[in-house]
Amino acid sequence: MCGIFGISGHEEAARLAYFGLYALQHRGQESAGIATWADGEIHSHVGMGLVPDVFTEEVLVHLPGDVSVGHVRYSTTGRPEPRNAQPLTVRMRGGMQLSLAHNGNLTNAAELRAELEDAGAIFQTTSDSEIFLHLISHCLKDMSLEEAILSACDRVEGAYCLMIQAGGKLIAVRDPHGFHPLVMGRLGDAWVFASESCAFDLLEAERLRGVRPGEMVVIEHGALEYRSFALRKSAPVRQCIFELVYFARPDSVIFGEDVYQCRKRMGLELVKEAPADVDCVIPFPDSGVYASLGVAQGAGVPYEHALIRNHYVGRTFIQPSQSMRQFSVRVKINPVHSMIEGKRLFVVDDSIVRGTTVRTRVAKLRDMGAKEVHFRVSCPPIRHGCFYGIDFPSTRELVAVQHGPEELAALLGLDSLHYLSLEGLKRSVSCPDQYCTACFDGCYPTPLPAVQDKYSLEYARK
Amino acid sequence: MCGIFGISGHEEAARLAYFGLYALQHRGQESAGIATWADGEIHSHVGMGLVPDVFTEEVLVHLPGDVSVGHVRYSTTGRPEPRNAQPLTVRMRGGMQLSLAHNGNLTNAAELRAELEDAGAIFQTTSDSEIFLHLISHCLKDMSLEEAILSACDRVEGAYCLMIQAGGKLIAVRDPHGFHPLVMGRLGDAWVFASESCAFDLLEAERLRGVRPGEMVVIEHGALEYRSFALRKSAPVRQCIFELVYFARPDSVIFGEDVYQCRKRMGLELVKEAPADVDCVIPFPDSGVYASLGVAQGAGVPYEHALIRNHYVGRTFIQPSQSMRQFSVRVKINPVHSMIEGKRLFVVDDSIVRGTTVRTRVAKLRDMGAKEVHFRVSCPPIRHGCFYGIDFPSTRELVAVQHGPEELAALLGLDSLHYLSLEGLKRSVSCPDQYCTACFDGCYPTPLPAVQDKYSLEYARK
Amino acid sequence: MCGIFGISGHEEAARLAYFGLYALQHRGQESAGIATWADGEIHSHVGMGLVPDVFTEEVLVHLPGDVSVGHVRYSTTGRPEPRNAQPLTVRMRGGMQLSLAHNGNLTNAAELRAELEDAGAIFQTTSDSEIFLHLISHCLKDMSLEEAILSACDRVEGAYCLMIQAGGKLIAVRDPHGFHPLVMGRLGDAWVFASESCAFDLLEAERLRGVRPGEMVVIEHGALEYRSFALRKSAPVRQCIFELVYFARPDSVIFGEDVYQCRKRMGLELVKEAPADVDCVIPFPDSGVYASLGVAQGAGVPYEHALIRNHYVGRTFIQPSQSMRQFSVRVKINPVHSMIEGKRLFVVDDSIVRGTTVRTRVAKLRDMGAKEVHFRVSCPPIRHGCFYGIDFPSTRELVAVQHGPEELAALLGLDSLHYLSLEGLKRSVSCPDQYCTACFDGCYPTPLPAVQDKYSLEYARK
Amino acid sequence: MCGIFGISGHEEAARLAYFGLYALQHRGQESAGIATWADGEIHSHVGMGLVPDVFTEEVLVHLPGDVSVGHVRYSTTGRPEPRNAQPLTVRMRGGMQLSLAHNGNLTNAAELRAELEDAGAIFQTTSDSEIFLHLISHCLKDMSLEEAILSACDRVEGAYCLMIQAGGKLIAVRDPHGFHPLVMGRLGDAWVFASESCAFDLLEAERLRGVRPGEMVVIEHGALEYRSFALRKSAPVRQCIFELVYFARPDSVIFGEDVYQCRKRMGLELVKEAPADVDCVIPFPDSGVYASLGVAQGAGVPYEHALIRNHYVGRTFIQPSQSMRQFSVRVKINPVHSMIEGKRLFVVDDSIVRGTTVRTRVAKLRDMGAKEVHFRVSCPPIRHGCFYGIDFPSTRELVAVQHGPEELAALLGLDSLHYLSLEGLKRSVSCPDQYCTACFDGCYPTPLPAVQDKYSLEYARK
Repeated sequence: MCGIFGISGHEEAARLAYFGLYALQHRGQESAGIATWADGEIHSHVGMGLVPDVFTEEVLVHLPGDVSVGHVRYSTTGRPEPRNAQPLTVRMRGGMQLSLAHNGNLTNAAELRAELEDAGAIFQTTSDSEIFLHLISHCLKDMSLEEAILSACDRVEGAYCLMIQAGGKLIAVRDPHGFHPLVMGRLGDAWVFASESCAFDLLEAERLRGVRPGEMVVIEHGALEYRSFALRKSAPVRQCIFELVYFARPDSVIFGEDVYQCRKRMGLELVKEAPADVDCVIPFPDSGVYASLGVAQGAGVPYEHALIRNHYVGRTFIQPSQSMRQFSVRVKINPVHSMIEGKRLFVVDDSIVRGTTVRTRVAKLRDMGAKEVHFRVSCPPIRHGCFYGIDFPSTRELVAVQHGPEELAALLGLDSLHYLSLEGLKRSVSCPDQYCTACFDGCYPTPLPAVQDKYSLEYARK
Repeated sequence: MCGIFGISGHEEAARLAYFGLYALQHRGQESAGIATWADGEIHSHVGMGLVPDVFTEEVLVHLPGDVSVGHVRYSTTGRPEPRNAQPLTVRMRGGMQLSLAHNGNLTNAAELRAELEDAGAIFQTTSDSEIFLHLISHCLKDMSLEEAILSACDRVEGAYCLMIQAGGKLIAVRDPHGFHPLVMGRLGDAWVFASESCAFDLLEAERLRGVRPGEMVVIEHGALEYRSFALRKSAPVRQCIFELVYFARPDSVIFGEDVYQCRKRMGLELVKEAPADVDCVIPFPDSGVYASLGVAQGAGVPYEHALIRNHYVGRTFIQPSQSMRQFSVRVKINPVHSMIEGKRLFVVDDSIVRGTTVRTRVAKLRDMGAKEVHFRVSCPPIRHGCFYGIDFPSTRELVAVQHGPEELAALLGLDSLHYLSLEGLKRSVSCPDQYCTACFDGCYPTPLPAVQDKYSLEYARK
Repeated sequence: MCGIFGISGHEEAARLAYFGLYALQHRGQESAGIATWADGEIHSHVGMGLVPDVFTEEVLVHLPGDVSVGHVRYSTTGRPEPRNAQPLTVRMRGGMQLSLAHNGNLTNAAELRAELEDAGAIFQTTSDSEIFLHLISHCLKDMSLEEAILSACDRVEGAYCLMIQAGGKLIAVRDPHGFHPLVMGRLGDAWVFASESCAFDLLEAERLRGVRPGEMVVIEHGALEYRSFALRKSAPVRQCIFELVYFARPDSVIFGEDVYQCRKRMGLELVKEAPADVDCVIPFPDSGVYASLGVAQGAGVPYEHALIRNHYVGRTFIQPSQSMRQFSVRVKINPVHSMIEGKRLFVVDDSIVRGTTVRTRVAKLRDMGAKEVHFRVSCPPIRHGCFYGIDFPSTRELVAVQHGPEELAALLGLDSLHYLSLEGLKRSVSCPDQYCTACFDGCYPTPLPAVQDKYSLEYARK
Repeated sequence: MCGIFGISGHEEAARLAYFGLYALQHRGQESAGIATWADGEIHSHVGMGLVPDVFTEEVLVHLPGDVSVGHVRYSTTGRPEPRNAQPLTVRMRGGMQLSLAHNGNLTNAAELRAELEDAGAIFQTTSDSEIFLHLISHCLKDMSLEEAILSACDRVEGAYCLMIQAGGKLIAVRDPHGFHPLVMGRLGDAWVFASESCAFDLLEAERLRGVRPGEMVVIEHGALEYRSFALRKSAPVRQCIFELVYFARPDSVIFGEDVYQCRKRMGLELVKEAPADVDCVIPFPDSGVYASLGVAQGAGVPYEHALIRNHYVGRTFIQPSQSMRQFSVRVKINPVHSMIEGKRLFVVDDSIVRGTTVRTRVAKLRDMGAKEVHFRVSCPPIRHGCFYGIDFPSTRELVAVQHGPEELAALLGLDSLHYLSLEGLKRSVSCPDQYCTACFDGCYPTPLPAVQDKYSLEYARK
């Protein structure tokens, strides 16, 4: 997953991108970058780490201009290397500079790359986003930038939201399936784009609408109007339902859905499907909080915030000694004894991926004397990989591939375990047919890549 | 406020202090330090910043030994200067090294300091903790270390929990009023002390009991038993009730009280005192969460976690442009529109100090269309300064000094505002007579300092 | 100017490149980089700054393999930007990785670049070195790597020493004119290449010979023999004489010349051409030291080391207040009063470029009471720009373009000023006809670029 | 050794101290500090490392005022710990702040310290400089600051140059023997003090005279005149002759001697005492340069600068592999082959301490084919420790204690070795009777400490 941002028509374009990316930080913590446009030139800074680590006041001062694109990256294709940080900025025909930020994952990247290399193209990154640059560049001799982008989109398959700037233009593109969200808004006379609406709240920008699946929106430099183009490939809308379950921030509105309310509805569906007689509902913080509220209200039992997060847990941490078992679990979350001992509990989280965290936390609750532990998960079992940008582990590491719910309940020492059904999940959203649910049911909306590996663009070692 | 930690009899004394301080980080973020004892020598490292910033693996390696004391500091007396970071380590008579970590604030520091300087003492810090060192040092010619500490305690007035190590001994002291918490426990054969029990949970140590008001506990190097001494001054127990309201972590047990349950009881009392007809209860995160749960359960209305924290807000942050009003409020917390618009709300927090944060957040809720906002505070109005270690602003900045509740409700645009009564607060704790409530009622359990200034030890400029 | 290094057949290839670049640091302080080959893959690290700043032990550990190329850069074409740091590493046809390090400057870069962009090539750097990569890549469909490099060299004009590695091969190339030095040697069974022989001294490698003008040397992975190819363009040998005057280290042997002895001979020629009756000879340290020794020995007067360098002057330095005139001159060099006052001096340096440093230093000597100051320069006046990699300022900033020697002597307050004649300079070297002396006489051995600007590859702003 | 600096009456007192310390950096690279006086308060910053590492523009901005004292430290007594960095700043009677910078070493520190501790004093550093603070503080009840300092000086024995500021006064003190240099000068209306005159050259200050042995100079805040006091202990003048041989910068005038000329005279004496038939004179750079010039001029043979320093050798450096023998020697200095092979050489340095560097360098010269190597040292053999501030290794590590000159010449593979005689050395200076030569002849001008250990203040481990 990644987060992208763009703005045109505001004299503090870099600063606003900084804050926009700050609000999108949950979508990618590996690298961050901003490219601005001033005096006919692109100014760019990218780096590894969180937004406030990469950008200082001094860096921002060197990013003048009223157009910018920004990117936060969570590695999907390509290793965590500095050169893979985005936006990518290059020179094309006539020396035209272009910056591109990409959220998503192409399914025909390997084929396109081989074809381009055969023609003499050289690649500097292992990210599939560079493929867009070559495809666009090869068209520029004969067509306009907009046409070149549309032509590039003719060739690629898979998931892509793009923010592009070149020659003062700001261009937003969303693939025909509309896998990932991209919203547009206004901030005074400026145009703003972001992966999620929570970025607009921080800027006090107004959300207008989502960029539509298969739409390209072009903002000319200084324009008060936008131009909308349709991509030439058409496809059924297949938005990523896991964005609603897990990825998006609860205070965002994406795909026209209020994420907070969606998650509460998942909780309500959960308790309908699998009630139990319990004393209270406890979320795994913070991911399980919103579904828990639905569970508590549906079941009519108290919500208790009884697993306490340590707010100072950061990225750097000295390793504990070997005698301190399961330390990394304890350091993040500490249960309140008095709320656990002798209690019958609903414990709620939004997903189970590998199952290791659940195992140690449930064991801790048992150690503390929980009488019953009924675990509820607000989505179906994840049994299939994602080729559109969600970074699941390999299928053999997915605990739901190895164990059915009952087997897993026994393994985890649970009194009961229930995953929300796919039907229940769909009942929680407004347009259930417009979602990709491949990770649950294996129904992929596109052909799959020949080699299904996160590192497929990294080549076999020669 | 500060947090202190001590351990004796564990070969990884520095590493355990690191983790203990990590769990106490909420008690002080300005500086951190650890001093260990090995081969007849004290090894020490202190620095400005958070525990994981000050201590790296390389630093820990240079802190050998099986005895340690640690400290995290939040400036009360003394400016944020590196030399004020604790533990303080000095040489005394015969070259004996001693390290001292202090949580609290002395009320007769200025007098003692002037007296000591007159006798030729030189001071390197502006913290009142250094006074203990001089008092102890001046007694050592004629008495043992334990007697010297008792004699020093004869002279000082105010609040102090001390962790001292010298010559392999580990010594814990709590003042006769017992203002601040200090708990003792065991980790295998080792003895452990910490400001709060949450540090024991992280280490998987067992909580034995609190160090008693007016008690000094001495652990000889390698001892399996402890020795307990009584300080020679006696005084009524006056524990800081604000620790329970605000300061301590909700997963701690201090003063024999379960903090989480205490806060829920405050919420229950609140709703008894001031009910209202509302749609839901929303806490100011995270401080208002636990009282909110009590309010919600007492009022029988849903708890909603509808103010979303940005978990990536760190310490360094580029300043927004002037056009971005109230940015610092928005960047921390974003409300979920759909939970606010048209809703009648209970909004709960644990205290109101200056009132500025409340004002901007309530305005935001109004902007978003909240129909009614009923604000509930889980303690009485704070109208008096603290001389025992809680760092309130000066009384003229305390909003409750300037405005009565009704006036303040009007100012903040609230439909109603209710502070928990002092009686209600006392009903929430087990031994209501053993608490200091001076910040609410002005009943100070000790004589006050002549000059009542945080910087009183910094001297007038000459 | 830049320095390049390559090694094949040594298991610590990265570490040796580190030390090799360390010895070549005087050739470039802006950026440094090393790319190694292990397990069929290239591992690379580049960064801004000095070699020991860019490379730490931890970085070296992540550069395994027995083949490496390295580069230190002093910007000639292209701005000081991180992405311009070398070696450049890219993927080409079939995913083959290739790393290239380049010392020199192409004179037809702009034309080649426009042509490549027209064909759809995208450029990530503003350095002309990237042009080689595109030229090579476009040939790979139809020919071997060696042939592709020879074909690329058919197209380019100007100065280039290249170190390339791909697929385990190490390849060294020197342009037909042989503008810049590149020496080859052995270290046990390993093959080593470096811009100057002083790198071999540090590694205790044995210097075999220079790579010849117009030669490409190929080391297969693991080979004990090398293969030598001739480039297909031929041209008269025109080595850069300024390397001997100024750029190379005095302990190097390049172009078959001992640099130290060359510089002493320049001093001997100087004193023959322009003797004077003086008390002693003083060099501008350290650049004037070696010619000074020749002057002193030729003139039979004492050499005095009377301008003292401050060895702690580093890169970061707080600016002095405005009242401290000419501070930056004083902080680097301080004269010994007793050696200046009342003395008649020969002052010697290796060149005068802008003339500002000379002016302030001579004024200082006059202030201190020097009786006579006779300035001697060990090369002719620099009156013409260099298009082959030496970074002179624009011609209008060259002091010798604006002022003849007599005029300049008057301006600088000198009793006499003499530049070594071009004939004298040529007498100081072994093969006087094989040198480029364009910066002195304007006789350029190649056609010149259409736009003669250091930033010509950076494009007009659009 | 250390360097100290003081200025009074200049509005940029901190900035000038910064530059003054920069010029004195050769006297101490372990720590640096500056304390200024503004608005009745002392502002101070100290840190580990070089002057430009410790002080940034931002730090200087927080050091306002027109009086400052500064210090660079090279550890003699006390370990390299941050708390030992100077100036030391403390509070004394009435809250008066005082900052002290000390160059030298006390010989009765241990006794004074024990006595002070017995009286209840606590020590925060292991440096002997803190003793001055306690001695001064204990007198302040009954006398003025000036009298208290004189009283403190009554008690101490050994070497001390002090710069003190308190209450706006700037005070310079030099011990009765006058072991180390301290010069005073003017910069406009401001008064300036520094360990060496080279600091004045950098500031363009005028050197007035040295502070006299046994003199205390007091500058009142804003005064145009100074007051001079005599210390009450008297003693024969015994200035450290090793400052002239080795420690001071060659462009300084100290003890009334021009250091550069002194060192040349040592070279002239050397060649008189031990001539040889050689081709040229080569210094060990840079320490041997100035005596070499005297040797060359005395012997009438050419001076050659044939050992080339690598100017980029810094403090951080990756370790070479084990196969790279004697790497640390090679990386600093590389000989010019053509000047060594087949040559008969005078090699000159200013001292031999441990002998390890000499050994490897001479071996290298032999490897390169030097025909004869005649080593000349510009001072007598160092056979005795120093208790006054020069940090020699323990006597058993001094090579001259273990081996006589002939034995050592054989060990080092020299054709001849000659140390300058003590008489020859004394002939090189103006007032030969006013120097301490204890390191050569063991004639110490003071009683020696009971325990003669660099770490004697660090206490036995208890």
